[in-house]
Amino acid sequence: MRIVPVTADVSIKRDIDTGTETQREAVEAIIQQVRDQGDQAIRELTKKFDGADIENFRVTKQELEGAYAEMDQSLIEALREAITNIRDFHERQKRQSWLTTKEDGTILGQKITPLDSVGVYVPGGKAAYPSSIMMNVIPAQVAGVERIVMVSPAGADGKLPASVLVTASELNVKEIYKIGGAQAVAALAYGTESIQAVDKITGPGNIYVALAKRAVFGKVDIDMIAGPSEIVVLADEQADARFIAADLLSQAEHDEQASAVLVTTSQKLAEQVAVEVETQLAPLPKKAIAEASIRDYGVIYVARDLVEAIDVVNQLAPEHLEILTEEPMNLVGRIRHAGAIFVGPYSSEPVGDYFAGPNHVLPTNGTARFSSPLNVDDFTKKSSIISYSKQALQTNGHKISALARLEA
Amino acid sequence: MRIVPVTADVSIKRDIDTGTETQREAVEAIIQQVRDQGDQAIRELTKKFDGADIENFRVTKQELEGAYAEMDQSLIEALREAITNIRDFHERQKRQSWLTTKEDGTILGQKITPLDSVGVYVPGGKAAYPSSIMMNVIPAQVAGVERIVMVSPAGADGKLPASVLVTASELNVKEIYKIGGAQAVAALAYGTESIQAVDKITGPGNIYVALAKRAVFGKVDIDMIAGPSEIVVLADEQADARFIAADLLSQAEHDEQASAVLVTTSQKLAEQVAVEVETQLAPLPKKAIAEASIRDYGVIYVARDLVEAIDVVNQLAPEHLEILTEEPMNLVGRIRHAGAIFVGPYSSEPVGDYFAGPNHVLPTNGTARFSSPLNVDDFTKKSSIISYSKQALQTNGHKISALARLEA
Repeated sequence: MRIVPVTADVSIKRDIDTGTETQREAVEAIIQQVRDQGDQAIRELTKKFDGADIENFRVTKQELEGAYAEMDQSLIEALREAITNIRDFHERQKRQSWLTTKEDGTILGQKITPLDSVGVYVPGGKAAYPSSIMMNVIPAQVAGVERIVMVSPAGADGKLPASVLVTASELNVKEIYKIGGAQAVAALAYGTESIQAVDKITGPGNIYVALAKRAVFGKVDIDMIAGPSEIVVLADEQADARFIAADLLSQAEHDEQASAVLVTTSQKLAEQVAVEVETQLAPLPKKAIAEASIRDYGVIYVARDLVEAIDVVNQLAPEHLEILTEEPMNLVGRIRHAGAIFVGPYSSEPVGDYFAGPNHVLPTNGTARFSSPLNVDDFTKKSSIISYSKQALQTNGHKISALARLEA
Repeated sequence: MRIVPVTADVSIKRDIDTGTETQREAVEAIIQQVRDQGDQAIRELTKKFDGADIENFRVTKQELEGAYAEMDQSLIEALREAITNIRDFHERQKRQSWLTTKEDGTILGQKITPLDSVGVYVPGGKAAYPSSIMMNVIPAQVAGVERIVMVSPAGADGKLPASVLVTASELNVKEIYKIGGAQAVAALAYGTESIQAVDKITGPGNIYVALAKRAVFGKVDIDMIAGPSEIVVLADEQADARFIAADLLSQAEHDEQASAVLVTTSQKLAEQVAVEVETQLAPLPKKAIAEASIRDYGVIYVARDLVEAIDVVNQLAPEHLEILTEEPMNLVGRIRHAGAIFVGPYSSEPVGDYFAGPNHVLPTNGTARFSSPLNVDDFTKKSSIISYSKQALQTNGHKISALARLEA
C-alpha cells in the first residue's frame, strides 16, 4: 500500500458509473415496454433476464411461512435482535409536527406527514441481502408509511432466498413481488395492472437498476445512487496494525472500485499497516478484487499531527470512518464530514452494517459533505401551516403590501 | 374558468422545462469556459450577457452602506420585521445532535453538522427579490453554515438594486458577487481565482440558471428546480367568491404556466367564482398572462362533499393551498400533500410569501407528495456515531458474524 505525505488536495472521488450508451438505451426501452404493456412486459422481461417463468409475481403467504423451515433458529434470533436495534435507533429520529401561536391570533406551524407509499428494491442474484431489507424498510415504517412494497428478482426456480422472505416476514412486509431489474423500477414508478405505483423508490441495485432509478426520478422520488464503498481509518501510534489492515481489506474485498484509506500521525504505524496488508492479502478468497482496490484506491497518508490528520478526513468526507486513537470519542466533534463514525477498537464496520442500529445506507464519493445516512426524514415531508387572524392581517397588511410591491 | 365535476384522475402536472438542445449546449460551454479560464471567463460572460463591464465582482462595504440612502425607512422596518419572523420560524426547525447509551457501554448517536458553505443565487433583471434572499439565507444561517455566498447579476450600470443590497446587509451577508446566469453557478460549483467553490447552491433563476444547477449537481448539492407556481383553493359555500377570484388571479398573473384551481363543494360558489374571475381579469395590467394561465391551467372542480374535495386536493398535491371553509383548521389534519397550507380568510398567499415566517420556496408540480419547503435540514447533514464497548462486542460478535455470513 502506498505511503504518502499529506498534500494540499486529497480526494477519493471516483467517476460515478452512468453506464454505457447501450445500457442507457436498454433501460429506456424496458421502461417504455412496462409503461405500454404492464404485467405482460414484466412477465416477458423476467423470463428474459432472470430466467424465471412467473405467472403471479406476488409472494404468497405460503411462501413466506414456508421459508422459516429453511432458516436456522439462532439466525432468526439474530435477525430479530438486529431489527429491534435498528428500529430503536430510527425511532429516535422521529419528529413531531408543531404549531406556534401568537397573542394576535397568528398560528404558524410545520406538519410532518409520512409518504403514502414506498417501494424498496432488494438485489438478488448470487447473494441475499436481509440487511438491505431492514435498513430500507424500518425507517419507512417508523416514519409511518402505510404502503411498503418490496421487489426482488427471483432465481431461475422462481423463488426468493429464505433469508429474504423471513426478514420481510419478520418486518411484516406483505406486498412483495418477485421482479427485479429496470422492469421492477418501472413497475414501481408507473404501475401495472397488478402493481400500484409508489411515491418513492429506495434500495441498491446493479447498473440497470441505478439507471432506471435515475430515469424515473421526478415521476417519483428516489434515494441516493450509491457509489463504490469507502473506509477511512484515522489512527495514532497506539492503534493495532493488524486490525487496521483487516478492516481496510474487508472493504477492499467488496469491489475493485472500493476505497480503503489510512490516515495516521505515525510513520511507524503506516509502515506496519502496509506490511500487514500485504501479509493478509495473500490468503484472501477474493484476493484479486482486494488487490486491485488497494492498488487503485488505497493509500496511507502520514500527517504531521492530529490536526492535519483530521483535516484530511474532512476533505475525504468518507462513507465509513473508524477512529482508532487514544481518546477517539473526543475527536468526534472535529469530524465535519462522514457518513458513519465508528469510534474505538470494538466498533468495526460490520457492527454498523448489520446489527447496531444506525443505517448502513450512507453517502459515498465525498457526498457526506452534504448528504446523510438514510433516515426517517427521507420517508416524510413537511408542510408549512400559516393561519393569520383578522387582527394580525390588519396590523401587518400594509407591510406585506409594501414588501410585495418591492418585487413587482 | 372551466367548471368540471371531479374525475378519477385529477392532476396539475406540467412538463418540466428542460430547455432546448441549444440552451443546454450553451450552458455546458459556459461551465467549461469558467472551469478553464476562471475570473477571465466570468468577466467576459458578464459583459456579454449582463452588459456590465466589471473588474471586481465583489460588492464593497461602500456599496452596501450606500444602498441605505435609497431605501425608504418604513420599508427597511418592514424588511427587519420579516427577517425576525422568518428567523423565528426557522429557529424552531433546528435539531440537536443526540447520543444514546446502553448499560453494556454501547454509545449510538446522530451528529447534526451544518454544511461548510452555501451559495445563494438571487435573480436580477427587471425586478428585485429581497424575499428570495431572506428565504434562502436565513435557513442556512440558522443551520449554522459558516460561509454564505450570494451571487446576483448586476444591471448594465454594474449595480445591484438597493433593496437587494440592504436585505443582504441586514442579514449580515458579506460575500456578495455581482455575477449571474450559468457562469455564476459554474463559479460557485468549481471556484475561480477570486471565488471559492461552495458545497451547495440554492435559489431560483431563469432556464440557464436551472440548467446550470442541474449540470453541476453531484459536484455540489442543489435545492429543488422549481416549476411554475400553483395555488389550489379549497372552499365551501360560505367562502367569498371575490376573494377567491382575486387569489386565483394573483397566482395566474405570475406566469402563463402558473396554475390556479378551485376545489369546492358548492356549485353556486363555483359559478360565482367563474364570473368573478372574468370580471377581475379585465382591468389587470398583466391580463394576457393571467388569461393564458387560467385558460390552460385553471379549473374549478365541484366535489360531491368535503371528503371528495379533500381527496382532490391530496391528488393535486399543490404548492400553495388555501382553505376557506367553515372550520378550516379542522381540515389541516386531512391534508396529506401540500407545500404550504394557508388557513382561513385572513391568510392569503402574500402573507406567507413575504412576511409570516415559513419559507416561500415550496415543492411544485405534485412533488409535495414527497418534498418539503426549503428548511434548516436542507443546510445540515447527519453522521451516525457507533461506539461499541469490549463487552458489547463480546456479547454480540457471533450474531454479527452470522448475519454477515448470510450475505457473503
